[in-house]
Amino acid sequence: MCEANAFLKKKEDTDYTEFLTAVDIVKPTENGLLLENIFGERKIIRAKITGLQLVDHKILLEEE
Amino acid sequence: MCEANAFLKKKEDTDYTEFLTAVDIVKPTENGLLLENIFGERKIIRAKITGLQLVDHKILLEEE
Repeated sequence: MCEANAFLKKKEDTDYTEFLTAVDIVKPTENGLLLENIFGERKIIRAKITGLQLVDHKILLEEE
Repeated sequence: MCEANAFLKKKEDTDYTEFLTAVDIVKPTENGLLLENIFGERKIIRAKITGLQLVDHKILLEEE
């Protein structure tokens, strides 16, 4: 499978922590960025995608 | 492999066209978003990541 794990850096943090594993879909919505993983779990957060390392299965997000 | 193909929507376009295949790394730089694929090809573009569909191997970019 080619999903990736999303890591989030919050405004007050200097480092990234795991936010959602096995992410398939990321798309913008009115309420923020919607992430959905291969198990159907969904999370919405006001953040932007700041980097990808797909061979390492990583999505980097920063809170806005 | 878990790379994905990047599709770009240019300012003047309404649809996405393929920009770079087999992308591994995407990261911000001073000159724009740097994409690097598993073959070592690199492209830089002033764009943002607007969506991911990783099971379908898609990265969506919009020109800024």
